[in-house]
Amino acid sequence: MDEFDLVVIGGGAAGERGAAQAAYFGKSVALIEKEPVHGGAMVNTGTLPSKTLRETALYLSGFRQRGLHGVDLKLSREASVDDFLYRLEAVVTEERTRISQNLARHGVRTFHGTARFTGPHELAIDGAGAEPRRLRARHVLIATGSSPHRPPQFPFDHQRVYDSDEIVRVHDIPKSMVVVGGGVIGCEYACLFAALGTRVTLVEPKPTILGFLDDDVVATLKARMQALDITFRMPAQVWGCETTKQGVRLSLDSGDTLEADCVLVCAGRQGNTAGLGLEHVGLETNKRGHLAVDPVSFRTSAPHIAAVGDVVGLPALASTSMEQARVAVVHLFDLKYKTKVAPIFPYGIFTIPEVAMAGESERDLVAKGIDYVAGRADFAHNARGVMVGDEGFLKLLFRREDLMLLGVHCVGENATELIHVGLVALMSQASADLFIETCFNYPTISEAYKYATYDALGRRAQKG
Amino acid sequence: MDEFDLVVIGGGAAGERGAAQAAYFGKSVALIEKEPVHGGAMVNTGTLPSKTLRETALYLSGFRQRGLHGVDLKLSREASVDDFLYRLEAVVTEERTRISQNLARHGVRTFHGTARFTGPHELAIDGAGAEPRRLRARHVLIATGSSPHRPPQFPFDHQRVYDSDEIVRVHDIPKSMVVVGGGVIGCEYACLFAALGTRVTLVEPKPTILGFLDDDVVATLKARMQALDITFRMPAQVWGCETTKQGVRLSLDSGDTLEADCVLVCAGRQGNTAGLGLEHVGLETNKRGHLAVDPVSFRTSAPHIAAVGDVVGLPALASTSMEQARVAVVHLFDLKYKTKVAPIFPYGIFTIPEVAMAGESERDLVAKGIDYVAGRADFAHNARGVMVGDEGFLKLLFRREDLMLLGVHCVGENATELIHVGLVALMSQASADLFIETCFNYPTISEAYKYATYDALGRRAQKG
Repeated sequence: MDEFDLVVIGGGAAGERGAAQAAYFGKSVALIEKEPVHGGAMVNTGTLPSKTLRETALYLSGFRQRGLHGVDLKLSREASVDDFLYRLEAVVTEERTRISQNLARHGVRTFHGTARFTGPHELAIDGAGAEPRRLRARHVLIATGSSPHRPPQFPFDHQRVYDSDEIVRVHDIPKSMVVVGGGVIGCEYACLFAALGTRVTLVEPKPTILGFLDDDVVATLKARMQALDITFRMPAQVWGCETTKQGVRLSLDSGDTLEADCVLVCAGRQGNTAGLGLEHVGLETNKRGHLAVDPVSFRTSAPHIAAVGDVVGLPALASTSMEQARVAVVHLFDLKYKTKVAPIFPYGIFTIPEVAMAGESERDLVAKGIDYVAGRADFAHNARGVMVGDEGFLKLLFRREDLMLLGVHCVGENATELIHVGLVALMSQASADLFIETCFNYPTISEAYKYATYDALGRRAQKG
Repeated sequence: MDEFDLVVIGGGAAGERGAAQAAYFGKSVALIEKEPVHGGAMVNTGTLPSKTLRETALYLSGFRQRGLHGVDLKLSREASVDDFLYRLEAVVTEERTRISQNLARHGVRTFHGTARFTGPHELAIDGAGAEPRRLRARHVLIATGSSPHRPPQFPFDHQRVYDSDEIVRVHDIPKSMVVVGGGVIGCEYACLFAALGTRVTLVEPKPTILGFLDDDVVATLKARMQALDITFRMPAQVWGCETTKQGVRLSLDSGDTLEADCVLVCAGRQGNTAGLGLEHVGLETNKRGHLAVDPVSFRTSAPHIAAVGDVVGLPALASTSMEQARVAVVHLFDLKYKTKVAPIFPYGIFTIPEVAMAGESERDLVAKGIDYVAGRADFAHNARGVMVGDEGFLKLLFRREDLMLLGVHCVGENATELIHVGLVALMSQASADLFIETCFNYPTISEAYKYATYDALGRRAQKG
């Protein structure tokens, strides 16, 4: 039986990074992936496909900006599913290749099949028809990811009822769609299809979408989504879903019904832990299938087994999952390297426009009793913002006492990139002085950091 | 005669900021602008128009990206000069309005006319036909900007011979153009017109364009400009320029001739100091019309007179000029506020793709004998880079000894924004640890900061 210092289960964002890091430090590493290709949800069904489709949607819908430039650009024919998938194949293939090359370069042995524990240090790999292969593992990194939660009132076997992993392989661009769930994934797909001309209705049980974000950011995003002709039904619950000849009919708790070509259900995700044989290592999961781990080392209650990424629950972002994997490997092998994940991580949401945040929200600061001052810069008053017609804004939160930067919130075309200027400032424990002293390129959206800081200083001076 | 604490000469980027800052601190301020509108070169003839035209050019030429998305977008008719100017008028009007409102809000008295000193503390304003108006000034801020240098071999009175202030009001989109000068302005316009389909030839006396940039950045930019069908003639000098029935004919030092619809001459700029009456205050300029100033306080040899922006020479960027004006006002009035311009300022160049840098170049470090290690991340291996087809890269320079960040160099679609992540890190005196510890959004181009850092660490480890 082959023996490895580390066996990684799952070849997604987290698994790849964990395997490569252990191999880099001289450990023998195997990686088991249940699909024929690497990349996991990040590459194959989730993050990367949705963001690639979004770029294509923005491009295909570019003719909507004609008001901005005074010219017409027209699609020379109706956009079709092939157009939609063309770029996706190129991007996904590139990323899968990159992962395989990275694993090969680090000397990671890769296996394809379903992994299950057969003992504390033993794993079986069930392949297609073949005898199970067995490995011995001194340490194990569980990075099996997550799958869409499927509420029972939706008949997912019907071709017009999609979960968020299926929608990226949509057969044609629907004329109308109901999106159930106003979280990150629901809002991203609602924007994407709306930009392509699909009439989208978004149903959310809570009174607001994306409740963890800054209230002003949500208000701006919601207005922009309405400008994309997205209809909001919230708070509202879907009680039933029938399929019809034309599509689907949903019944809401209000008694209303909604009809559309299709429905996309984005009701959260659950950890991929079923069938892992966790009983053989004494591990249990919660009802969402998530493993409990130590928040610093990512060790499970079995000290030689760590778990990272979506399978341990929130934040369940590709970016944070990769960091968790690197840190977990450091702890498993007691390496002299990065022993903690970043104290602050950013959220980047690929709605249209994008939304991003890092650090504290006003809600957090009020709850903690921290006295703060906010400063805001609207991109409609920023030279480059005017050029590109960006209607977003940047909001900075500073501690009132000493003007330490505490939080950064942004909505706008490039928010997921722009946030990193503030993130690096937060990581450096910077105060307002940093943005006052820094000279920003003109004309750039980034200048908003300086003007939002001036705004905060002005408000602080007014209130004494 | 009205008397003011400060009289600002010039209502461009620098003048506006200097006037507003003095007024904010309770000083009585007058601002004299020779044109009927505020904004100077930044708004009316230079920075903002060229960047706005660039956005429109990128949009109009968007159909060139069809290879990326597998679809055709077509212009519904030939782009015309009206399309080209449509967005410009909107952007310029917005910015002029913002400036006027900002000056009014701060209580700055504005005058339109040509200012000249008649004594150390006295200025006359010559308006159209009217009696000169006279002002007394306790202090003066000269922010009169610059104008294109016009080498004698070009007949600028001919309508097909443009300087860089005239080209933004081009009468039609030319089929062919020779751009003389491979500096920032020349390269920006060469890219802009090439994106619109103009056949561009760039003539530069030195063997390279943009010689102050990183060599690898220049190589990538040049390749991308060649992909836009720009032809380079360098090193080459233009000895003569004749106008013909079809356009212009240029003779080069090599004996070759170049014919084109028009020529754009970008041969540097000179300070607007003629007619200012500097002899009445004992000030002189160099042959480029630039005033000498103290590098910290921006005072001229007359202690109550400061000069800032293009009129004092390099770097002559809107961003740095605004900073100089704010700092000059602090020194003129001994205010307790920001007393120095940023120790590091970024360069942002709006070529296609964009280019940016901050901090030291490899050339500087070699010259200073500082041992360094470089790390590079190519956007073709970055998930978002692949999505948008960005072929640029990020290069970071670290001091070998302690991995202090020393320089940031970037070429790519969004380089002028992306550079600020590195700029804020430089301003915070960060080391490689900062980028290793920071969690970046996925998929974003900004992740390149982490991967370029890993690359540098790997190279350092290899060399011991």
